[in-house]
Amino acid sequence: MAPNLAQTVAELGEFALIDAIAERLQNEPHEGVTVGIGDDSAVVSAQGSKVVACLDVLTQGVHFRLDWSSANDIGHKAAAANLADIFAMGATPTALLVGLALPADMKVAWVLDLAEGLRDEAAKVGVQVVGGDVVRGDSITISVTALGELGTQQPILRSGAKPGDVVALAGELGFSAAGLLMLSRGFRSPRALVGAHRVPTPPYELARAGHKATSMIDVSDGLVADLGHVAKASGVAINLDSSALVVDEVLTTAAGVFTCDAMEWILTGGEDHAFVATFSDALDVPAGWTVIGTVAQGEPVVTVDGQPYDRAGWRHFSA
Amino acid sequence: MAPNLAQTVAELGEFALIDAIAERLQNEPHEGVTVGIGDDSAVVSAQGSKVVACLDVLTQGVHFRLDWSSANDIGHKAAAANLADIFAMGATPTALLVGLALPADMKVAWVLDLAEGLRDEAAKVGVQVVGGDVVRGDSITISVTALGELGTQQPILRSGAKPGDVVALAGELGFSAAGLLMLSRGFRSPRALVGAHRVPTPPYELARAGHKATSMIDVSDGLVADLGHVAKASGVAINLDSSALVVDEVLTTAAGVFTCDAMEWILTGGEDHAFVATFSDALDVPAGWTVIGTVAQGEPVVTVDGQPYDRAGWRHFSA
Repeated sequence: MAPNLAQTVAELGEFALIDAIAERLQNEPHEGVTVGIGDDSAVVSAQGSKVVACLDVLTQGVHFRLDWSSANDIGHKAAAANLADIFAMGATPTALLVGLALPADMKVAWVLDLAEGLRDEAAKVGVQVVGGDVVRGDSITISVTALGELGTQQPILRSGAKPGDVVALAGELGFSAAGLLMLSRGFRSPRALVGAHRVPTPPYELARAGHKATSMIDVSDGLVADLGHVAKASGVAINLDSSALVVDEVLTTAAGVFTCDAMEWILTGGEDHAFVATFSDALDVPAGWTVIGTVAQGEPVVTVDGQPYDRAGWRHFSA
Repeated sequence: MAPNLAQTVAELGEFALIDAIAERLQNEPHEGVTVGIGDDSAVVSAQGSKVVACLDVLTQGVHFRLDWSSANDIGHKAAAANLADIFAMGATPTALLVGLALPADMKVAWVLDLAEGLRDEAAKVGVQVVGGDVVRGDSITISVTALGELGTQQPILRSGAKPGDVVALAGELGFSAAGLLMLSRGFRSPRALVGAHRVPTPPYELARAGHKATSMIDVSDGLVADLGHVAKASGVAINLDSSALVVDEVLTTAAGVFTCDAMEWILTGGEDHAFVATFSDALDVPAGWTVIGTVAQGEPVVTVDGQPYDRAGWRHFSA
C-alpha cells in the first residue's frame, strides 16, 4: 500500500516508514551486494579483502537549510560528500548506509524525497543504500557511511606527496561558497552557483582516472586548507600558481556584484568536492585535470605564488 | 598539549576537539587496520573479500538521557548495539566509525568520556574507532557504523530458519526494560537492572560460538518482535516455551515491587542485545545457550506456549 505522503512520520509509524523508505531506495541491484536492507547488517563486496569506509554527518542549520534546499538536493549532497571521500582514496564505492534522525512532525513526502536524492546520487556511481537506521530526534541529522573497495590497488593517502611532484585539480572550486553567499543574501541565482551549493557534483570519473596519484584529497574545507592537510601528512611544502586556477566568468561576475574576491572563493571555499592530487610525473596527470602547483622540500605549508597564504594577505596581494 | 576539559566544544574549536578525541580513542593497534583516523576514509581488513556493515543512530532523549547515563555509559551502549549486529551475522568485527553531532555548549570532558566508552567497548572485541565525523548540532546525535568480516563463513541471516530447528538464546532478557522503568520512576537501583539499561552487555563470545546457527538476530526490539522478523524472513512459525525462559530473581523481585510482569519484560523488553538463533540440530547449540523453542511450518508468527502472543493476552494467561 502506498504511504500517505501528507502524513507525518509519527503518524505513519516507524515500521511503515522504514518499508516506504526501502521501497523508494529500490534500484537496479548492485552485483557486489550479498545482503541489503532487512537484516542485522549488510554484506557487500570488498575485493582485495580490504574495505574503505568513511562516515559524514550533516545537520539541519549547519550543512543544509530546509528553506534553501529541497529534500532531494540534501539527499544528493549527503551521498556526494561521502562518495567523494571513497574516490579520494583511489577506491571504487560499493554501497552506502544511511542513518536518519527525524523530528516526529516531518512529512513522509520530505523523507521519501530525501531517500530519492540519496538513491539517485548513489546510482551515478552504480551503488545503493544497503542499510541504516531511522530514529526520532529533535532536529534532522543525516549520517552517511560510504563503503568502497580497492581490488589490487593500494590506497591513495594524504601522506604520499613527494618533493618534485606536481599538484593537479579536477573539478570546480568556489562555486559552492559563492552560492552560499547568494543564498544568505536572499538570492536564488545565478543558478550555477546556488545549484553548486545545494548539490555538489564531484567529478567522480576524473578521480577514478587519477589512480596514479601519489596523494589525493577531496576539497571539502577549501583548497588551501585541504592541501594543508596533505602538506602536513606528507611533510612537504606545496606552492600553488594562482594563474593556473581558472576563474569562471560566473564567479567573476558574482564577485563584482557583491564586492567579493573570486580567487578567495576558489582558494578557501569548501563543499565543492573537487579533487586535488599530486603526481610524480606530469605525464601521469589524466585528461581533465589541471596542473596548479608543485611540491617541494620544506616546512609543511601551502603557499600561493610563493607567498604564505591567508585571507587578509591574499586580499592585499590581489588588490 | 592536553585540552582544557572544562571548556565547551565551541571554545576548544573543531580541529583541536578532533585531535583530543583521536588521542582519547588511541588503543593498541588492530592488525586489520591499514589506514585509521586522519585520511579521507579508513581502510580495514575484510577477509573473504566481503564486508559486513551496519549503522545505528542514538539520539538524546530517545536512546539516552544525560541525567540517567554517564558519557562513558553512552559510549559503551552505542558501540555495543552495533557490535551485536555484526556478531548476529556470524561475522567478526573489525572496526567502528563514529559520527557525533554536538551542541556548541557541550563540555569537552563529556565528549572525551564518550570517546573512552566507545574505545573500551570496542576493545572488548579487539577493535577500534578508525574514523568518523564531528559536527555541530542542536542536540546530541551519535551515529555508529560497525564493520566486520566473514572470512570463509557464510553470513547467518534472518531468513535461514527451517521447520524442525530449535530456537536458542544467549544472554539476558528483560533487564534493560526493567532498568528503564526503575530510572523513569526515579530509582537508581537495583544496580543489575539499571546498569543493564545504561550499558548492555551482549554476550559476544557466545554469539561467536553459535556459528552453526541457521539464523540469528540480536534482541533489540524485544524477543517476540525480533523472532517475528526471523519468522517472517524465513517463512516459518516459531513457538516459545515460557518455562524455558529463566526468570532471574532480581526481575521477579522488581516485578513484585512495581506490580509488573517479569515475563512481559523478558518477552518484550528491548535493548539487552541478547542473541537468539535457530539451529538445525540441538547438538549444534553451544554451551552457554539455552533452548527456548521450536520452529515449525505454518504462518510466520511467534507463539508462546502455543498461544498467539500479545501483551494483553499474555497478562491474561499469566494471571
